[in-house]
Amino acid sequence: MRMRKKKWQDDFLSQNLKYLIKEPSQFKNKWKSHFNFLTMHLEIGSGKGDYWLKMANMYPDVLFVALEKDPACVAVSLKKALDLKLNNAFIIIGDASNLLEFFGEKEVDVLHLNFSDPWPKKGHHKRRLTAHTFIDNYRFVLVNNGQIQLKTDNSDLFGYSISSLSMAKFICVDCDLNFRKTSKEFDAISEYEQKFMDLGQPIYRCVFIKGE
Amino acid sequence: MRMRKKKWQDDFLSQNLKYLIKEPSQFKNKWKSHFNFLTMHLEIGSGKGDYWLKMANMYPDVLFVALEKDPACVAVSLKKALDLKLNNAFIIIGDASNLLEFFGEKEVDVLHLNFSDPWPKKGHHKRRLTAHTFIDNYRFVLVNNGQIQLKTDNSDLFGYSISSLSMAKFICVDCDLNFRKTSKEFDAISEYEQKFMDLGQPIYRCVFIKGE
Repeated sequence: MRMRKKKWQDDFLSQNLKYLIKEPSQFKNKWKSHFNFLTMHLEIGSGKGDYWLKMANMYPDVLFVALEKDPACVAVSLKKALDLKLNNAFIIIGDASNLLEFFGEKEVDVLHLNFSDPWPKKGHHKRRLTAHTFIDNYRFVLVNNGQIQLKTDNSDLFGYSISSLSMAKFICVDCDLNFRKTSKEFDAISEYEQKFMDLGQPIYRCVFIKGE
Repeated sequence: MRMRKKKWQDDFLSQNLKYLIKEPSQFKNKWKSHFNFLTMHLEIGSGKGDYWLKMANMYPDVLFVALEKDPACVAVSLKKALDLKLNNAFIIIGDASNLLEFFGEKEVDVLHLNFSDPWPKKGHHKRRLTAHTFIDNYRFVLVNNGQIQLKTDNSDLFGYSISSLSMAKFICVDCDLNFRKTSKEFDAISEYEQKFMDLGQPIYRCVFIKGE
């Protein structure tokens, strides 16, 4: 989602460099070695940052990097990050289409796509984060047996993503049309996800692994 | 679904041999050549036969074979078949686990699974028609690029089937979580399916092709 620009965001983003990676390309091919982690998860389109930060908090041994194109969302995320004082969470202001500028080959262990823009019009489907142009890049940055974990409230986007990933030779190892029907403590619930749950709407989730 | 036994079914099934294939193994490896069709579709678990017969009626150039284990269901299906006077519809009383007795390698072009028993208990999942033991047989009887077309009202069975088929190297080329949202004239609606539609429930459908 795109947020209205905040008056304070430009100053804030220029000052708070602890969690904001201004020049991500400098870490390309060395994210894990530089930050000293064995495993890296990347969330693309992290929105207000709830999921990214909760997951980083739940898994302190895992490096969590977030990519979000909206500076207002990143500013809001950073405010939360400063409160949490995490050592394993970093965020990039950037677009998924520039993924290969930021990450090298076989560098990412798990890629998260949460409640991505469904782009409902047929002519806009190629903008979806599971369109084949994006998937080719995901394949490049993922380690062998790396995973894509996708959640959405949107049934159209879910069906599209399943066939799109499958046709790109990713293998679906889990597919759940009502993920929150039972407790899933291993996976964080963002405020955004909680809203759908409160409305009684099903959360769709699938996990794909990179095939040969 | 299993029906109550009909008083008339045994006599009826012994007399009406036009559409009922009593010894299907005699046609193994020669279904299409014997009946003189270029394409064969097979529905496994055809229930009361609505889908099988409507599809055969819609596609007179395609051989439609139905496999149903419940003799009462087959008897009801045959009654309808006799009224329709089709030349391209045949039915077998038999179980999916015996598929390889009836069909040879690369003989089936499209395999239909409609509203199969969801076997909800975890311990019974291996009885689902998309459990891996069944899928191995589907792969064997399907031609190269052959399809599995699956419909269900059951979200658990749908999610299970997607991951099960994907892990068996089938490729999802279409996945629709609300198949009847728009008109799909190419695909017949059985009475059983219509009931769910009348209740406003979504029909889930996916199409998988046999991968390498």
